Amino acid sequence: MAQKGALEGLKVLDLTRVLAGPYCCALLADMGADVIKIEQPGTGDDARFFNPFKNGESSYYMNMNRNKRGITLNLKKGQDVFLKMVKSADVVVENFRPGVMKKLGLDYEELKKVNPRIIYAAVSGFGQTGPYSQWPGYDLIAQAMSGIMSVTGEADGEPTRTGGPICDAVGGMTASVGILAALQYRNKTGVGQMLDISLLDSTVAIMATINQHYLVDGRIPQRRGNSYESGAPMESYKASDGEIVLAVGNDKMWNKLVDLMEMPKLLEMPEFETVHKRVQNRKPCKEYIEQWSKKWTVADLVKTLLDAGIPAAPIYNIAQVCNDPHIAGARNMFVEFDHPIAGKVKVTNSAIRMSETDACVKMPSPTLGQHNNEIYKDVFGFTEEEIAAFRNERVI
Amino acid sequence: MAQKGALEGLKVLDLTRVLAGPYCCALLADMGADVIKIEQPGTGDDARFFNPFKNGESSYYMNMNRNKRGITLNLKKGQDVFLKMVKSADVVVENFRPGVMKKLGLDYEELKKVNPRIIYAAVSGFGQTGPYSQWPGYDLIAQAMSGIMSVTGEADGEPTRTGGPICDAVGGMTASVGILAALQYRNKTGVGQMLDISLLDSTVAIMATINQHYLVDGRIPQRRGNSYESGAPMESYKASDGEIVLAVGNDKMWNKLVDLMEMPKLLEMPEFETVHKRVQNRKPCKEYIEQWSKKWTVADLVKTLLDAGIPAAPIYNIAQVCNDPHIAGARNMFVEFDHPIAGKVKVTNSAIRMSETDACVKMPSPTLGQHNNEIYKDVFGFTEEEIAAFRNERVI
Repeated sequence: MAQKGALEGLKVLDLTRVLAGPYCCALLADMGADVIKIEQPGTGDDARFFNPFKNGESSYYMNMNRNKRGITLNLKKGQDVFLKMVKSADVVVENFRPGVMKKLGLDYEELKKVNPRIIYAAVSGFGQTGPYSQWPGYDLIAQAMSGIMSVTGEADGEPTRTGGPICDAVGGMTASVGILAALQYRNKTGVGQMLDISLLDSTVAIMATINQHYLVDGRIPQRRGNSYESGAPMESYKASDGEIVLAVGNDKMWNKLVDLMEMPKLLEMPEFETVHKRVQNRKPCKEYIEQWSKKWTVADLVKTLLDAGIPAAPIYNIAQVCNDPHIAGARNMFVEFDHPIAGKVKVTNSAIRMSETDACVKMPSPTLGQHNNEIYKDVFGFTEEEIAAFRNERVI
Repeated sequence: MAQKGALEGLKVLDLTRVLAGPYCCALLADMGADVIKIEQPGTGDDARFFNPFKNGESSYYMNMNRNKRGITLNLKKGQDVFLKMVKSADVVVENFRPGVMKKLGLDYEELKKVNPRIIYAAVSGFGQTGPYSQWPGYDLIAQAMSGIMSVTGEADGEPTRTGGPICDAVGGMTASVGILAALQYRNKTGVGQMLDISLLDSTVAIMATINQHYLVDGRIPQRRGNSYESGAPMESYKASDGEIVLAVGNDKMWNKLVDLMEMPKLLEMPEFETVHKRVQNRKPCKEYIEQWSKKWTVADLVKTLLDAGIPAAPIYNIAQVCNDPHIAGARNMFVEFDHPIAGKVKVTNSAIRMSETDACVKMPSPTLGQHNNEIYKDVFGFTEEEIAAFRNERVI
């Protein structure tokens, strides 16, 4: 396995808090970028107070800030310090509410005066422009306004939140894609630029194949539980010790499934004759399948279905994910690091696997201001006297 | 607005079908990469048969393949043709089941013989390695096995699928991040590489803040509807004409909300005294809030809450998303192009906004083989005689 990262030498100033921005910078750090997390002296990132904790250290923070070094800086007092760092940095990422950086005198227009090559990514709930730009942006709010809640849940139930922070994650990933593309442009032209990334835009973008039903047909997609409009049976089914999903994509697979179930009468029933009819009659279809599936364990059922060529999978809980021989084993999706206070902690790894360069968690997240000395002195050339003065004046 | 794209000059050969791979390449194409979509002669991408249709053309396909040019090539007959294209390409993206490209003699080992600078991204359900690598990979299957279904839905309900193709989208975005990082590495070293991206890994990665509850505390996170463990009231509530979400993050906001509701008795009730108690008693808390919220329209309720400093938002259906003055207006998230067969079609735009370069939908998706002549002849230097022979032999 290679030991170097694809982004080695890329210097990123990470002003972000909580999830979307930190995740963007973690993706870059996993691939070797030198990400310097800059936090408010005394308190730091809000995520330092999010559970669960180990020896008082937040694992939430540890996950999102692995592979980064950390310094403190009060941006209301330390503008000159920040501008000096920007001179030799490649990327700045922030997720303040639009306008905050301008009030601090640190918006893109100011930063590019000292470094026209700087790539500045602003991550926000609603973007830097438009009537809602000042609304507070949280994952829950982007889930609500992107329409994704409106199509998640039972047909007769309520709009349902997805149980993971998908809008934060997708917003952070969108920012990473934009930053790396801007870097490619800068390599060719020498010119930096500003990126304006919103959680809401990013989530609307990944809903393209849902949005189109309204944009093309004028039909408003509705909630339909775990079932699909395009095929059936294709949803979740109970086994004796858990639940599975299966996806019967065509009549040939339907015949195979009926064979497995040993219920030949289903092939005679007009209500299951075509994909379209099986979609319309999915509830009775599910009842027949569960008469059969409930007699099997998840493991036997999935194996039997896969062997017959029918796509199927167990529905895992989080413990099963974390202990699975493929996910945790072969794919190495959970890795342990040794944190200076928390000790050994397992976090979720990068999903990027590269043949020539590393993309993985190697270094624990920083304690608050852990790297103040080495970064202010060795990376940015401040003197020990200056650093001592910053401390006295609570600039850092 | 700038007219050039950040990735102009980047030549991408896109062998992918359906969603994850095509979305990866669409992100690159939106930023100006020259993405050449390569499809099976006669049939093309499966997504060409996915509804909804306009004049018989799939809008699903149009969304995922905007800004690309299209050619046909039978990979079982046209290996030499493909290898000639690889010589001058920068990136190859494929989402076949692991092993298919090797059987065709077109795996990364073969491609790098003709072009050691090539960046080769393989996108699959489970990755190129590990015990499940040959399992069929669909969005539904990654939703089931990543644990995200297990934490989505009502506490007393079933594991619930998210209503958008989140695993496909996150897998595609992960591939884009990896490709652009590999490009940066190649700029410095001249060396290409292979990326192995799986839908399942990518989804497990964005679940980090959920996984940690098991990894650190040994607790298995459960479904809890739209509510959170960390704060309350913080979920969905009914208004007279729809639903909203609100997020009360601390006691100060709770006091403000109680003021707005004119229910001072709530401040006297021990069951709502602290955040922790409000989380434990969220159901009665929700009942009190809905006694009040149901009297308001969504618009008035959201405005009143935001004015009081309480994060809130409407829960939009897809029609509301597509017509919203911020999303569709100021942020320009839906754009129209003129397709040679379908005519004017609206698709969902890129979410990346850059100050110096364009990232947006400009060109419609190709009809099957639409650019065979211009690409085989002008881009890759095949003669007209060769192209005529390819046609006769059904290579293209």
